[in-house]
Amino acid sequence: MREFATIILAAGKGTRMKSDLHKVLHPIAGRPMLEHLLANLAELTPTHTVVVAGDRHEQLRQALAAHSITVALQEPQLGTAHAALQAKTALADYSGLIMVCFGDCPMVKAETVRRLAAVLEGDARVAVLGFRPADPLSYGRIIADEAGTVRKMVEFKDATDEERAVDLCNSGVIVAHSDDLWRLLESVGNDNAQGEYYLPDVATNAIAEGLQVSVVETGEAEVQGINSRAELAQAEAQWQELKREEAMTNGASLRAPETVFFSWDTEIGRDVTIEPNVVFGPGAKVADGATIRAFSHIEGAEIGPGCEVGPFARLRPGAVMEKGSKVGNFVEMKKAVLGEGAKANHLTYLGDAEVGPGANIGAGTITCNYDGYFKYKTVIGPRAFIGSNSALIAPVKIGADAIVAAGSAVSRDVADGELRMVRGEQLVKPGWADRFHDAMKKKKAEKAEKGK
Amino acid sequence: MREFATIILAAGKGTRMKSDLHKVLHPIAGRPMLEHLLANLAELTPTHTVVVAGDRHEQLRQALAAHSITVALQEPQLGTAHAALQAKTALADYSGLIMVCFGDCPMVKAETVRRLAAVLEGDARVAVLGFRPADPLSYGRIIADEAGTVRKMVEFKDATDEERAVDLCNSGVIVAHSDDLWRLLESVGNDNAQGEYYLPDVATNAIAEGLQVSVVETGEAEVQGINSRAELAQAEAQWQELKREEAMTNGASLRAPETVFFSWDTEIGRDVTIEPNVVFGPGAKVADGATIRAFSHIEGAEIGPGCEVGPFARLRPGAVMEKGSKVGNFVEMKKAVLGEGAKANHLTYLGDAEVGPGANIGAGTITCNYDGYFKYKTVIGPRAFIGSNSALIAPVKIGADAIVAAGSAVSRDVADGELRMVRGEQLVKPGWADRFHDAMKKKKAEKAEKGK
Amino acid sequence: MREFATIILAAGKGTRMKSDLHKVLHPIAGRPMLEHLLANLAELTPTHTVVVAGDRHEQLRQALAAHSITVALQEPQLGTAHAALQAKTALADYSGLIMVCFGDCPMVKAETVRRLAAVLEGDARVAVLGFRPADPLSYGRIIADEAGTVRKMVEFKDATDEERAVDLCNSGVIVAHSDDLWRLLESVGNDNAQGEYYLPDVATNAIAEGLQVSVVETGEAEVQGINSRAELAQAEAQWQELKREEAMTNGASLRAPETVFFSWDTEIGRDVTIEPNVVFGPGAKVADGATIRAFSHIEGAEIGPGCEVGPFARLRPGAVMEKGSKVGNFVEMKKAVLGEGAKANHLTYLGDAEVGPGANIGAGTITCNYDGYFKYKTVIGPRAFIGSNSALIAPVKIGADAIVAAGSAVSRDVADGELRMVRGEQLVKPGWADRFHDAMKKKKAEKAEKGK
Repeated sequence: MREFATIILAAGKGTRMKSDLHKVLHPIAGRPMLEHLLANLAELTPTHTVVVAGDRHEQLRQALAAHSITVALQEPQLGTAHAALQAKTALADYSGLIMVCFGDCPMVKAETVRRLAAVLEGDARVAVLGFRPADPLSYGRIIADEAGTVRKMVEFKDATDEERAVDLCNSGVIVAHSDDLWRLLESVGNDNAQGEYYLPDVATNAIAEGLQVSVVETGEAEVQGINSRAELAQAEAQWQELKREEAMTNGASLRAPETVFFSWDTEIGRDVTIEPNVVFGPGAKVADGATIRAFSHIEGAEIGPGCEVGPFARLRPGAVMEKGSKVGNFVEMKKAVLGEGAKANHLTYLGDAEVGPGANIGAGTITCNYDGYFKYKTVIGPRAFIGSNSALIAPVKIGADAIVAAGSAVSRDVADGELRMVRGEQLVKPGWADRFHDAMKKKKAEKAEKGK
Repeated sequence: MREFATIILAAGKGTRMKSDLHKVLHPIAGRPMLEHLLANLAELTPTHTVVVAGDRHEQLRQALAAHSITVALQEPQLGTAHAALQAKTALADYSGLIMVCFGDCPMVKAETVRRLAAVLEGDARVAVLGFRPADPLSYGRIIADEAGTVRKMVEFKDATDEERAVDLCNSGVIVAHSDDLWRLLESVGNDNAQGEYYLPDVATNAIAEGLQVSVVETGEAEVQGINSRAELAQAEAQWQELKREEAMTNGASLRAPETVFFSWDTEIGRDVTIEPNVVFGPGAKVADGATIRAFSHIEGAEIGPGCEVGPFARLRPGAVMEKGSKVGNFVEMKKAVLGEGAKANHLTYLGDAEVGPGANIGAGTITCNYDGYFKYKTVIGPRAFIGSNSALIAPVKIGADAIVAAGSAVSRDVADGELRMVRGEQLVKPGWADRFHDAMKKKKAEKAEKGK
Repeated sequence: MREFATIILAAGKGTRMKSDLHKVLHPIAGRPMLEHLLANLAELTPTHTVVVAGDRHEQLRQALAAHSITVALQEPQLGTAHAALQAKTALADYSGLIMVCFGDCPMVKAETVRRLAAVLEGDARVAVLGFRPADPLSYGRIIADEAGTVRKMVEFKDATDEERAVDLCNSGVIVAHSDDLWRLLESVGNDNAQGEYYLPDVATNAIAEGLQVSVVETGEAEVQGINSRAELAQAEAQWQELKREEAMTNGASLRAPETVFFSWDTEIGRDVTIEPNVVFGPGAKVADGATIRAFSHIEGAEIGPGCEVGPFARLRPGAVMEKGSKVGNFVEMKKAVLGEGAKANHLTYLGDAEVGPGANIGAGTITCNYDGYFKYKTVIGPRAFIGSNSALIAPVKIGADAIVAAGSAVSRDVADGELRMVRGEQLVKPGWADRFHDAMKKKKAEKAEKGK
């Protein structure tokens, strides 16, 4: 594709979201919708990207800090054509194709943009993106001939019955050469009820100038705008459906695909089994042959080949499960490595820990990694056996083949092959419980009596 | 609206539910369906409400004990008109509009009743509620003119093909003035195959008397009767869908709305984020800006602004999370207050407890609140630090800024700024584990040998 | 039915599954699809069953080891007719009806096979199973008259437009007497693009011989083949939907049926309540009046009448809950019996244990049943009270009415009515925490300073 720049309009107030967060920063599959759009367009390696912001522009600036993207301010907000014009200064030195698109319409694919650019290789000077929705509602209509040459762009409210019967609708996305775009944007007027400058008038004015405007069509899902939380949920659902199909096509079994929620970057191997009700946060990788059982929550974690996770497992960022290791129910891992074949099967917290291969972490084990100020590390050697209900008070090191007796709070290192037991005195009070039961039953009866 | 009384028929056996529980006491969104109906009708402030019961009437009496509602007994059960007549004694002193409706058809809205009452302000003397189902099946048909004046009520089995082609069906709900209603009910005969007295004959007889009967239409969902567990599940699904839309419209993000289950009284703030798979029981309030992560179960709990809950959190009745506090995975709270900014992030049980602001409850902490007879309270001061795997044996008080060392079972109060450590002797047995491994491997081998 | 044998074709490579596991061994509702088919056909008590295997035949042999089934090898794989012929040797002594069906089309019902066999009681000599899919796609078509007599079997690619307009499609399932079947199979040629021997040619050749071929119709769901993980998920979904309806019809309340996942053998009683998000593995039985709360995972477990399970409970194989017992949140049971009315409400692991009636297992209790080599048993007497955060180090026995104090690691038996407390010294360091806070705050500030 020729030199290419993008203007992303994101100056709307997003009122229907009822949110303090900028609309385009609301996430789909764990990633802000604007980032989805940027990632899609990144395939086209645009030389410039300008985001036009209005309300809460500082949120956008912060969110985009890591990108080489200019944020242009539209102030006051006088319509979409006016918004696009605010990018002109940032693009002053640029000459080439420019696409104007929308931050709240994030699923536009690079391939579609390529098709838009392609029509400009021919006679067309402006390309607009159309779609045929199941229900055309009050979308603006595109009146075009069979070859895709646009005769007229018309707002729904101004359309004749005949025009309304046309189901080709305007997505708003438009591509033109910078020379044409700036001139056409500047020619747009605001002689309408709202007194706003509308982007589709770029196409209208181009036609008036005698320039050829062509329409490229795409599917409805790709250009669905997100204006409410319900539409956000729909976009999420569409995204999830595609991702689930992809995972199954690649050889993963999802017993109930509709109950598995992936993140935008989840990587799933072959012959992976995923039971119902599994949620992935960002940064999860699942290697071949692993099994993720029901009710597992996985983010920022690497699950090695043949591992078994859950049910009811929570893997947090920095959790690394090596080949064939197991994390069972009510177990949490964070910044912790579980060595090959090691097991932590029940009611355990492994934080800031290294567990050697073949080690067995008993039920109820807690790595005490925090003193309220700093975090400390626990290192457990190969084949070590940590008895149930033990507290490992970091920093602490348990040696290879060492054994920690059940119920121990271990605050000093345990050597290889050593047994460590931390246990209080066994107090035995024969008959005490019987006397306690008698006393309590009496007390309960008295209370009940009083309550009358 | 004029003076208004309600007769709710609930004398059916509910055989298809296959339940020991009275059909109208089965819950939708955590509230018995009869209570849904009563709450809807409460907007109309009826002067009298009579529930006509038959089978298992004692369950109804008990369930309605808190309401000022008369339960009239229908015994034997000779049809719906006969059932409605059983309310006459209870309404002997009442003169005014009466609605007859059904306990297993609980979604009838006050607004609809107002529309029924309104037609009686005109020439009509009886108002019936009709609907046009997607599939009219074998419902009784209402033959009416365009103005809504009913010409004929006809049971499906008695209907001509022409009448069956009419899709306006009878919901059964009927409104008339008490003077008319009692007379018409008493005029109903039982000359039919089942020998029963049918309520729609009230309208038929009114027409025969020359009185005007009018039909008011409503949507199918509102008058869907619930006769089986499958229909109960459908009603629940419809209710949930509306509630989810409401939450999203009000500014909550539901990543997967279809996996979030609200209770009838759940209150959700603005900019609340709810991850997939969250279940609310009755009495839950979630303030603005809170995040409910996946796999959380919340009932009778207040979640303050900006709080973070879950994943895998369980909040039970009396749990109160103050501003910015956090409850993490595998944590249960019951009758407990978590102060501002306090955290209980892992594997913890907080019951009958007060936790001060900024306190940190370590992983595996248990408040031991029960001795088998009575419950006792744990009070934890501001900024206190409870080390992991500790048992706080109530009644007990931990002071401000105090520290409980990991693995401690604390049975006596800890003063402000004090360290409390309860720990046994560290027994160290060098080489013991190695010898144990050798002995056990040998034993295992011997067992395997024997097993051959 | 007359003498009956089955040939199940399972020699396909299953490439689209992208799996190391043989396609027909992939599970639906926790049972390999081949086992579903075998169970369906078992109602017909076939005298012989031959599975024709190719790729990964050793996996099939192993999976079928417990059945009296012959695995015949097709090598090389030259088409479905060729595959069916490989069963001839195994059936050499057999004379009677033979059905040829497909391992990846496992939902064929015995009743349908009976209907196929029935047409052979009349004039027909070959019976084929047809269906009318919503979308006939490129299925082979069956051209038959109204009486079901087949005129022609035609592959989609060879079909005329008129033939393609016919929506009666060939499932591939065929039944004939052994005398006919072997002769017809041997008459099939491979004069086609792929050079393969196709099973439908058996019907074509029968017609050519002048024999009557009849078609029996069934629903699409029953003959849906499974060729991909997505189709596997669809089959699972269909199965689950039927099972949920069955559970509700039998008197169980499923608040959100679409979130409950049963296993092939799950047994659910009457007046059972199942909250959203419950997953059953194989071997679960739930008695009347039990409540399964949200987020529970149940496999190989018996839940007695009136029991309460969850939320967040995990019952593993060998868990037995007696009447009215309760298992609460974050509790795991494995090979353990919970006596009548006993409770384990929070954060507990009960493995290899017997808990007496009325016993109360405190929060955070762990039965330490494993020493890394062998498993040991914990026995808890009637009405015993296990204080929170206790470790019961098996083998160990807690007597009737005995009390174990909170935080105890109990390694020796506790007698009836005895109190056992295992507790370390209470170390009290007044002011220590305050000094610690001061020191740490200083250290934190220094670190922050350095970080600048």
